[in-house]
Amino acid sequence: MLNGFYKKMNVKALVTCFLVLTFSCSQSVARVSPNLVISQDDIPLMQSAIKEPGSFAKAYLETKASVDEQISQTIKVPVPKDGGGGPTHERHKKNYLLMYNAGVIYQLSEDKKYANYVRDMLLEYAKLYPTLDVHPKRKLNKQNPGKLFWQSLNEAMWLVHTIQAYDLILDSLSADEIATIESKLLKPVSLFLSEGQPSTFNKVHNHGTWAAAGVGMAGYVLNEPEYVEKALLDLEKSGKGGFLRQLDELFSPEGYYNEGPYYQRFALLPFITFAKAIQNNQPERKIFEHRNGIIIKAIDTTIQLSYNKLFYPINDAIKSKGIDTIELVNGVTVAYGFTQDTGLLDIAKQQGQIILTGDGLKVANALDANLATPYKFKSVAFGDGANGKQGALVIMRQESRGEQALLFKPAAQGLGHGHFDKLTWQFYDNGAEIVSDYGAARFLNVEAKFGGRYLPENDSYAKQTVAHNTVVVDEKSHFLGDVEVGNANHPELLFFENNAQGSVSSAQIDTAYKGVNLLRTLALVKLPEIDKPLAFDIFEVTSEEVHQLDLPVHYHGHFIDSNFTMAGFGNNLKALGNNNGYQHLWLTGQATPKAGIAQITWLNDNGRFYTQSSLVDGSTDALFTRVGANDPNFNLRNESGFIYRKNAVKNHRFVSVLEPHGEYNPSKEYTLSANPKVSNLSFEQVNNISLVTVQLKNGAQYLLAINNNTSEKSTFKYQQVEYKFNGRFNLFKLPSQK
Amino acid sequence: MLNGFYKKMNVKALVTCFLVLTFSCSQSVARVSPNLVISQDDIPLMQSAIKEPGSFAKAYLETKASVDEQISQTIKVPVPKDGGGGPTHERHKKNYLLMYNAGVIYQLSEDKKYANYVRDMLLEYAKLYPTLDVHPKRKLNKQNPGKLFWQSLNEAMWLVHTIQAYDLILDSLSADEIATIESKLLKPVSLFLSEGQPSTFNKVHNHGTWAAAGVGMAGYVLNEPEYVEKALLDLEKSGKGGFLRQLDELFSPEGYYNEGPYYQRFALLPFITFAKAIQNNQPERKIFEHRNGIIIKAIDTTIQLSYNKLFYPINDAIKSKGIDTIELVNGVTVAYGFTQDTGLLDIAKQQGQIILTGDGLKVANALDANLATPYKFKSVAFGDGANGKQGALVIMRQESRGEQALLFKPAAQGLGHGHFDKLTWQFYDNGAEIVSDYGAARFLNVEAKFGGRYLPENDSYAKQTVAHNTVVVDEKSHFLGDVEVGNANHPELLFFENNAQGSVSSAQIDTAYKGVNLLRTLALVKLPEIDKPLAFDIFEVTSEEVHQLDLPVHYHGHFIDSNFTMAGFGNNLKALGNNNGYQHLWLTGQATPKAGIAQITWLNDNGRFYTQSSLVDGSTDALFTRVGANDPNFNLRNESGFIYRKNAVKNHRFVSVLEPHGEYNPSKEYTLSANPKVSNLSFEQVNNISLVTVQLKNGAQYLLAINNNTSEKSTFKYQQVEYKFNGRFNLFKLPSQK
Repeated sequence: MLNGFYKKMNVKALVTCFLVLTFSCSQSVARVSPNLVISQDDIPLMQSAIKEPGSFAKAYLETKASVDEQISQTIKVPVPKDGGGGPTHERHKKNYLLMYNAGVIYQLSEDKKYANYVRDMLLEYAKLYPTLDVHPKRKLNKQNPGKLFWQSLNEAMWLVHTIQAYDLILDSLSADEIATIESKLLKPVSLFLSEGQPSTFNKVHNHGTWAAAGVGMAGYVLNEPEYVEKALLDLEKSGKGGFLRQLDELFSPEGYYNEGPYYQRFALLPFITFAKAIQNNQPERKIFEHRNGIIIKAIDTTIQLSYNKLFYPINDAIKSKGIDTIELVNGVTVAYGFTQDTGLLDIAKQQGQIILTGDGLKVANALDANLATPYKFKSVAFGDGANGKQGALVIMRQESRGEQALLFKPAAQGLGHGHFDKLTWQFYDNGAEIVSDYGAARFLNVEAKFGGRYLPENDSYAKQTVAHNTVVVDEKSHFLGDVEVGNANHPELLFFENNAQGSVSSAQIDTAYKGVNLLRTLALVKLPEIDKPLAFDIFEVTSEEVHQLDLPVHYHGHFIDSNFTMAGFGNNLKALGNNNGYQHLWLTGQATPKAGIAQITWLNDNGRFYTQSSLVDGSTDALFTRVGANDPNFNLRNESGFIYRKNAVKNHRFVSVLEPHGEYNPSKEYTLSANPKVSNLSFEQVNNISLVTVQLKNGAQYLLAINNNTSEKSTFKYQQVEYKFNGRFNLFKLPSQK
Repeated sequence: MLNGFYKKMNVKALVTCFLVLTFSCSQSVARVSPNLVISQDDIPLMQSAIKEPGSFAKAYLETKASVDEQISQTIKVPVPKDGGGGPTHERHKKNYLLMYNAGVIYQLSEDKKYANYVRDMLLEYAKLYPTLDVHPKRKLNKQNPGKLFWQSLNEAMWLVHTIQAYDLILDSLSADEIATIESKLLKPVSLFLSEGQPSTFNKVHNHGTWAAAGVGMAGYVLNEPEYVEKALLDLEKSGKGGFLRQLDELFSPEGYYNEGPYYQRFALLPFITFAKAIQNNQPERKIFEHRNGIIIKAIDTTIQLSYNKLFYPINDAIKSKGIDTIELVNGVTVAYGFTQDTGLLDIAKQQGQIILTGDGLKVANALDANLATPYKFKSVAFGDGANGKQGALVIMRQESRGEQALLFKPAAQGLGHGHFDKLTWQFYDNGAEIVSDYGAARFLNVEAKFGGRYLPENDSYAKQTVAHNTVVVDEKSHFLGDVEVGNANHPELLFFENNAQGSVSSAQIDTAYKGVNLLRTLALVKLPEIDKPLAFDIFEVTSEEVHQLDLPVHYHGHFIDSNFTMAGFGNNLKALGNNNGYQHLWLTGQATPKAGIAQITWLNDNGRFYTQSSLVDGSTDALFTRVGANDPNFNLRNESGFIYRKNAVKNHRFVSVLEPHGEYNPSKEYTLSANPKVSNLSFEQVNNISLVTVQLKNGAQYLLAINNNTSEKSTFKYQQVEYKFNGRFNLFKLPSQK
């Protein structure tokens, strides 16, 4: 056990021969311990930090108290029996977190009892593991099974944590202990997760990343350079799979992850963990510079994809997940360690959690020294797909009496967790979701709610097109609800532009429905006379055949008023339709507003009013809905919406403007501007230029001109006057009208 | 103008002759100015405080900035035209607040422009007022009209503020100006509000208090001691009405105001304002000691009637009103000035507003010096009615991993804003309302929602018995919904007791329904094995005839599970009934749980689960409801509930236990104890002792014994074992059962 021998030697004494050894082993990765996410160099700094008051010492004491409490109990390494959420599943999850934390506390406190605890648990695992076949609760034909866990994903997460725990206590182990733990446990697990499941290990997919991270880090610790190579390049070392390929393909060039921010946050952890371990072991690989710094970009993009601390809930997303999730805490920590970008400290401050690593210490010290500067949220189109050309996720922001954000989603399907919501949008204002996305239908880990898994209503409602704010043709979902077709087709981002007046973006897709083209242009633009920006929406449907077109707006708030007679259904409610999500919508009211401008106002809990003004032709129906029909177990949240429906047309253009206004303050007993300022809208197409005119109650008129063809110079005539502008769009003030 | 002459003299020079004058004028109230809420003594302290940094100076600068902005505009004193919420109404409201604030800024800054602004506005009013008849929008047969406002209540509020503004600028006025303002405006308004409307002025009612406060303070300033006497004793100086009588009758001995905390908060302002003015002008009246310090008690009780900063929303209450309302800010300020109770500073800190008065300065200084100590919320039965014997409002509290509060309402009807909810209850935990009260159906000042007034659904739903958590007999409301009958009858508080284990209270009423007695006992008790207390509910109905009995539970949260098969109605909803509020409830599901224990679990947004366990007999129906039927304008909030219904019985006892449990944390991806610990219940009556047995999942058993007869020693036998206890109730641990 030469390897074990060196590991046990005093580090300082090792330096000289170490250099020699590295040289003589050529390919082999010689090392000291610990040296994965936490390196040997970090230890003395961390040890001295815990002796001084400060955020780092506080985090240390908290973790130590939690570890102390847990290691006072008997070690439990049960024979695997239960699926996700069950007792043995949860026990093994707790065990790997506990081993990791105890390993950290050992290094910092230098108290051997922590190392011994980890050792004893590892030896228990080393006894159990060789006796195990694949997990009894494995899911056939779905995912590769684990042995400790029902799915190999959990087994890889176990290895990612356990190999670090092992690395942290290595210097405390005897040669025999090392031999037992490595030969009976760590190598078998590593082999099981690599050679044992090529389909997952070689896959360019988040599950592959977890396996690569676990196996690759094991390679460094167990002195198995082949493990590392395979983790980086795939089992055949072909480069067709493996970690580097995953970095090349799973993120777009801007660092956007195909499945959306909820999964991006989850996917982040193995990337940053393994990358940090690579950086510490093989700095010459310059892993953080790979693909123009894609890892740091991915971390930053995850932050950008949040509003008021919560992630935009597109696709299958639990809506309460946000920037304080542990994965992003780790991400911000590693990113700050690498970049020293003080804007990241702003996020770290909001996260309020300090990681016990070398980078964590840097964050703690910087926060204690008040070095944080405001993090800058930007308006940006994040290209989707490995090449960034498979559509985009567009975020427009403005900061005007409470931040506004408009999300526009001409993004790709995003695999199995993707929703059929091409070109959908959402609107946020003053801290709250205003035009909303249902997110996932799921009560995470609540056994009574379908075992805590995705509810049946996730498929039957939440994923369906009508659950989103985009056009539904003939009451059918995009791609007829087929994920594979969805994954094979994506919208095209036509343009995105941002200037001092605001942002505009346009995209289209002709594959969501056969023979139908959907073209949407959204803009967030501030009018000088209105203190909050307006959201413009132009949705153009063109088709060969006659169709029914529905454009829903799901909103958060209480209905206040409409400028047309709306009669809610009194004592008998029926479902709006029979399938594709329509069966889950109660039809609560109905109207056919007369031609002109139809306005619907609601009041959000944030105390602001919102009015959606739509250009209608007198034969467009307004249907009012509430979620919750055909939901015998009360699984769905009863949220409100309205749908503009146009029947039997080949082509139609929906034009609307959303206006945030006023304030409802019952506590202080005042209500301001409960009525919108927008009083009329018109639309005109002059060659390639779309013209939306907004008239305000005081007579003022504005014209938003959008050039759909070019961002070069534009010239157009409107009411006999010639106008000129540069770029994609411009807002003009027109002469007032009364 | 002798009066004006003295007012304009320097205060210090005045002292000697002043004493003489007081003596010689006997009854007359000689004075310096200002001397209402703000006294001449306060001024130098306040003047020097604004020169130092601190909370007081900050509040001064904010108010000054607001006043500066407003006085830069032209004075507008429009001819009265609009009703509540309309432009002239709002203008006159703004004017009196502005005059008051400008007066304060004048005293503090000594800048005469502020006094001149107030003077100019007063002169405008003095021009307008003599030309006015009663208001064109007066409400016939409802309330006395004002001249500036549609109702005299607003006119009295105008006078309360304006007389203070006048007092603050008096020393800047010429004798002519004084003569004009007093003779054309202040005296006429005072006479109009007193002699001009005896029915309001003499009434022992909140509207009378506003009139008394305005007229009485005018008496001090205008040197009209008769005004003061009439304000204190009524127009005939009989003592049958007037301020003193109002203090004696409008609050219970514990300081509870008949209409509930929402209106108590509103009623407070004229009491504390006038009391402070009396204290400054006639300290010999010892007004703050009147009726054992009823004013301070009323202020303190208003605070006690809040949970997590919001008032308990019983009766017609806007739910977002809480301790930061300006009336209670004034109340806490005056109470602190009088008592120096540092617990009040805790509330002042949460209010975050500093009043620019002498007492406000004391609060600001104390807060700046960090003198605040935690305010103590208590478990207490607030007697209702002038004698405290017309029932009670009972609050039980516990502090166990997030504060719990149980409100029990065997209170009197509470006049026109009272709800038909005798013996109803509410439960609060961890900052949130769990078993809820709808409050008022109203969007305050939102014109589109029925002019911002109480909505029709306030009568048709919110006030009705079924909208509350108490028994409804034969789908009719208490007192058949007749306010006068309700005001003439009230429940009887049988007992309330509080000890280390918790609190218990019992009350009954036999007038809510003819021939039916309703008896309810509620308890909030902590079991050693459950970390949060349980809420016990025993509701006993006895009657001569056969009836249908409904006991609703309106809850806030998402339905999770029931331990019986509940089939929600899929694609067709109907209203539960036809009137008395039932027409506004959708029947969303129905079941008849088998005999034993029926459990319903929901999840609140606070991340906790709540399970209501009810003892059922196999012939009790469970009806699931959602608010919103027959609501064509979407005026109601769509809240959830369930109703246990017992058909065709003369007598029935509903027994249940509410258990808070577990934690749902999707952000950190864990769910703890989503299932209740309570697994069974039983009930037995042994003589006068009610016995509720609670069995837990782990086999542990507890017995809650409540003596309905006496708080002396109790002895009873349960399963052959003899038990003894003192007081009204005791929790016993029984031998475990498995």
